[in-house]
Amino acid sequence: MKVWELGEFGLIELIAETVGKATRHDLILGIGDDTAAWRTDKSIQLGTTDILIQNVHFTLDIATWRELGWKALAVNISDIAAMGGTPSFAMVSLGLPPETEVDNVVELYRGMKEIASKFDVDIVGGNISRAPVVIIDVSLIGKADILLTRSAAAPGDQIAVTGYLGLSAAGLKLLKSRHKLDSKTTAFFREAHMWPHPRVAEGQILVQQGVRAAIDISDGLLSDLTHICKASRVGAKLWINKLPLHALLRSAFKKESLGLALSGGEDYELLFTARSEVIAKLTGIMSSPVTVIGEIVSDAPGQVTLLDEQGKVVKWDETGWDHFKSPGRGKR
Amino acid sequence: MKVWELGEFGLIELIAETVGKATRHDLILGIGDDTAAWRTDKSIQLGTTDILIQNVHFTLDIATWRELGWKALAVNISDIAAMGGTPSFAMVSLGLPPETEVDNVVELYRGMKEIASKFDVDIVGGNISRAPVVIIDVSLIGKADILLTRSAAAPGDQIAVTGYLGLSAAGLKLLKSRHKLDSKTTAFFREAHMWPHPRVAEGQILVQQGVRAAIDISDGLLSDLTHICKASRVGAKLWINKLPLHALLRSAFKKESLGLALSGGEDYELLFTARSEVIAKLTGIMSSPVTVIGEIVSDAPGQVTLLDEQGKVVKWDETGWDHFKSPGRGKR
Repeated sequence: MKVWELGEFGLIELIAETVGKATRHDLILGIGDDTAAWRTDKSIQLGTTDILIQNVHFTLDIATWRELGWKALAVNISDIAAMGGTPSFAMVSLGLPPETEVDNVVELYRGMKEIASKFDVDIVGGNISRAPVVIIDVSLIGKADILLTRSAAAPGDQIAVTGYLGLSAAGLKLLKSRHKLDSKTTAFFREAHMWPHPRVAEGQILVQQGVRAAIDISDGLLSDLTHICKASRVGAKLWINKLPLHALLRSAFKKESLGLALSGGEDYELLFTARSEVIAKLTGIMSSPVTVIGEIVSDAPGQVTLLDEQGKVVKWDETGWDHFKSPGRGKR
Repeated sequence: MKVWELGEFGLIELIAETVGKATRHDLILGIGDDTAAWRTDKSIQLGTTDILIQNVHFTLDIATWRELGWKALAVNISDIAAMGGTPSFAMVSLGLPPETEVDNVVELYRGMKEIASKFDVDIVGGNISRAPVVIIDVSLIGKADILLTRSAAAPGDQIAVTGYLGLSAAGLKLLKSRHKLDSKTTAFFREAHMWPHPRVAEGQILVQQGVRAAIDISDGLLSDLTHICKASRVGAKLWINKLPLHALLRSAFKKESLGLALSGGEDYELLFTARSEVIAKLTGIMSSPVTVIGEIVSDAPGQVTLLDEQGKVVKWDETGWDHFKSPGRGKR
């Protein structure tokens, strides 16, 4: 059945069914009124919104609807994680061409529901519109007691990152090309691109251990580290031989690996800075790898300098994703 | 200058300047980090999101960018008003074709800022993407102590509405046609369509006076009254001769007036139900007109029945806006 056959209100009912019963004890009103409503305590509330647009952020020949649902919510949860928060309530603005299959919309919400359940998020509202392409805009609320901000980096801090870099961009490259790897390797990279796992638990540990400066890597390591440098009015030295490159990335992408790690983006890992003694405490209590990749300096505020093994400056042109500066760059 | 020449991050800086300094005392972090952050008290938090898509909700040959900014936020504030709440923080997901003029984006945010200032709202974050058409998706947070819901209508309640009906739809019709009225009348209808004034103060009075069931009219009177009937499992009798039709609507649109009032939509007036003694108290303390237009009954739950002056049932086919059921219906 097509979306136009079911109609807007039929579709809303079906989505409410797919989303199912809300489970958070602090929810008062979910889907079905003019707004959602929830109780608050005196913690800090967080709010973020991130949009996925067909043929800009994804193409339907590569992504499944279920993957889109997961990812649309995941990228927002990642923002909450990067603030040291935990997510709570999501609202979804959905734009759909009338010819969209209703089954696909259900799959989309199943994907969203999957990750929502994993992170104790309730989907509590939104709206649906006719649109020329598929648009999925998620707004997410969360809470925190202490914040991780972009502006708290200080000279002398080490720069560290969770997990591996470049895997998501490598996944996209692989999915878009005809280049074939064995099915296990392909699945590994697809997972990295389509099913990001936001680092909420890791963000909580960072806060508890005294880290105060963090960002999640969405635009790309260089771009996001530059955001920290600008907001904190500091410079950064990045040791490119220290970047956490997964063995599968190195073997499948060889010399491209470094570029993917530096500028690929959509890693949804946490990039953070803190004193070395704080970072030393993290090893062993984080379930993901933590790698020190550089240091914050007072020179050249707002700038990231790349250094090789010998401490020589490396030039690098591409910084990361800019939605408008790169009109010729491929879709992602 | 075009958006692609300035780039995403230049545009974000310009928007932050246009939005200006935040003024709410409960804001902790506005534009510029992974999320916005604000302090909460123990009131109920409200959240809503509503999207405007070019060539679906508006066309750029009719609307100015400033009007779009105002309206994109206004429709969300109206949802908060309909819950008996006051708005606080807005986030904006913006999709723009790279060829968009930067000046137009500034105008858009000026319009948003205008209404934000009027209603004590801070614009605290969002994101910008390349998109095939202009997309403006606003998420809005608010707070309330007591809620006005769609599900609280009870048999014996009177049905009432603030302001006048059909003016916005009439405005759209006028703007789309070559039909000319005098410039003062045209301006009146344009204002009704482009610059809706959400009924926040009125919603507050409703709560204080004991009203508990309300919705804002966005889809159209019949459609939104049906939402109340379904959510409350009641029926409604609507007296069509009692509908508040403005004199200018009657004179300019003659026989079309009734249809515009019943199904036109985008009125952003409050539709509510309460005991007659509660509604009687409202006259004199509301700055907008309040008109009783029908009654809630226990018969035919989920249904709205139209009655004429003689109490005879009137048949009416069009209920209101459905994003998918009306593919042949013109843009709005």
